[in-house]
Amino acid sequence: MSKRLLAALAGEAVWPPPVWLMRQAGRYLPEYRALRAEARDFIDLCTTPRLATAVTLQPVRRFGFDAAILFSDILILPWALGQDLRFAEGEGPLLAPLRDATGLAALDPGRVAAAVAPVLETVARVREAVGEAALIGFAGAPFTVACYMVEGRGGDFATARALAWRDPVLFGELIDLLTAATTTYLLAQAKAGAEALMLFDSWAGLLPAAQFAAYVTAPATRIAAALRAERPDVPLIGFPRLAGMALGTYAAATGVQGLGLDTAVDPLLATGAVPAPVALQGNLDPLALLVGGDALAAGIEAILEVMQGRPHIFNLGHGVLPQTPPEHVADLVQRVRAA
Amino acid sequence: MSKRLLAALAGEAVWPPPVWLMRQAGRYLPEYRALRAEARDFIDLCTTPRLATAVTLQPVRRFGFDAAILFSDILILPWALGQDLRFAEGEGPLLAPLRDATGLAALDPGRVAAAVAPVLETVARVREAVGEAALIGFAGAPFTVACYMVEGRGGDFATARALAWRDPVLFGELIDLLTAATTTYLLAQAKAGAEALMLFDSWAGLLPAAQFAAYVTAPATRIAAALRAERPDVPLIGFPRLAGMALGTYAAATGVQGLGLDTAVDPLLATGAVPAPVALQGNLDPLALLVGGDALAAGIEAILEVMQGRPHIFNLGHGVLPQTPPEHVADLVQRVRAA
Repeated sequence: MSKRLLAALAGEAVWPPPVWLMRQAGRYLPEYRALRAEARDFIDLCTTPRLATAVTLQPVRRFGFDAAILFSDILILPWALGQDLRFAEGEGPLLAPLRDATGLAALDPGRVAAAVAPVLETVARVREAVGEAALIGFAGAPFTVACYMVEGRGGDFATARALAWRDPVLFGELIDLLTAATTTYLLAQAKAGAEALMLFDSWAGLLPAAQFAAYVTAPATRIAAALRAERPDVPLIGFPRLAGMALGTYAAATGVQGLGLDTAVDPLLATGAVPAPVALQGNLDPLALLVGGDALAAGIEAILEVMQGRPHIFNLGHGVLPQTPPEHVADLVQRVRAA
Repeated sequence: MSKRLLAALAGEAVWPPPVWLMRQAGRYLPEYRALRAEARDFIDLCTTPRLATAVTLQPVRRFGFDAAILFSDILILPWALGQDLRFAEGEGPLLAPLRDATGLAALDPGRVAAAVAPVLETVARVREAVGEAALIGFAGAPFTVACYMVEGRGGDFATARALAWRDPVLFGELIDLLTAATTTYLLAQAKAGAEALMLFDSWAGLLPAAQFAAYVTAPATRIAAALRAERPDVPLIGFPRLAGMALGTYAAATGVQGLGLDTAVDPLLATGAVPAPVALQGNLDPLALLVGGDALAAGIEAILEVMQGRPHIFNLGHGVLPQTPPEHVADLVQRVRAA
């Protein structure tokens, strides 16, 4: 019998739906904070297989989720390509901004394999220990990763988006480089033991239509095609956050097996725009989970009601917030399992 | 002959389309910065008819836009309701946060008329001087205004959105109060001389479907119905920013005469979702205007190509950025007029 998450990604209307949460491993868990203290810094945590494996498995052990998602970060790839990266306490990621052809030329795809070796080792270790849960590997999508690389930090990415308008050739070359590197990286995760893959395009919704097509849909289509050719057994979940009306086009063009819905997507409209067998994953408001109680119950119910009878993976529409009480997460799992 | 903007809002495919820009009056203009220096603070600028009138008219005089939009702020209404508000230099608006029933009870709709009298005086003065341009009045939509009122400042509005989950009765009462006050305020602007009205729901896209229906679509529907009943001669432009797939439902439910499209909306998909006679307004990326040159030309062309033959009002998808060179704005107007 196949794992529940993989069955949903194969187009089965598994019910009650498999459930996991974006950022299910993280600061809201005391056992995470304990292990985090053992690492020098965040990159050290992501690249120390003993720690990253334990952190990945913590929420699966505690809550019985249907999936473990590799504990890592979307910026591990630029770091592996040679871009300076640090995570400053309370400030988020800081990178040495890439603003021109010299910065692009300094990226070295040849060093990625060695740099990500510990991450792949984590994938292998988690796979061995994960039991009935499915192991999801992931990467940031080229556009979102490019945003951080050009801007040098989070925010509204005005510098990165201005560069896309000012120098579309350079920006396109960066996207192309990332598309190739991301494909290689995801295939390596599949080889190491990932049973499904997810592509996070957290900032896709910032783009006007033509740029969305060029920098979000086209790269995802190429990545998905390469994965299908090499590893048709490993399904891909696309997550073009805030894609709005473009969701249907994205799903059809890329041929992803699963589509992540952000909080703002109306599940009913999504089922119309993206028909089965694509599994729709999402999309409870993380704030409903934070608040808990009746809000949580109502939020869950509104989604399950619409998704019943079609392939669905229950999740949030964005990551678990750090202040979320762990008991609310336990309550969520229990409520979804009672569907 | 009716003004070009009003003809488009009446459903005519006016071509070349009327053009104006969100935040067309503001910091990117040296003549704005000069007048801004004459005011004590931002609220003083908004409530001194001599200054607000001049600032409103500056971009119309300089660029020949088809519309003047009242120079004011969406937070003038909470300020008029009695909530403490100040605009701190470089920090944006700061309000005394409204978090409970006591805060709600402290709001006094009875004081609005006197507080906004100078704003209405500005409307009357601008109308007298506006010539062939049309005068647009505006207000913030209840949800977006409530976000600032509860949070006390800009950002991701997590406190406000959590309150909507935690205490939907209180949040609903705040929305109801704002819906009534906004209706009264917009009708007063129409009486003072506004020829069209716009309802800015800048943060509508943060909401899950059920809350979007309750806090965005329903209030806008009530406001639009009241305006149609009292002033059928004054069209309304709705702007539920980042509404994504919900745009079509919003337009149909509210019956707005114009619909603002944010930068992320694919114009082609919008024309399918929102048929004529609704005028679609937007939606050039403000970054394309900032960059100028080929980017600006390409961005404009992509929109005009789709909108030709249907009622359209050329605009940005969000406000003019403060660093925008004024000559790029002149170039934009010239290019749109050459369509």
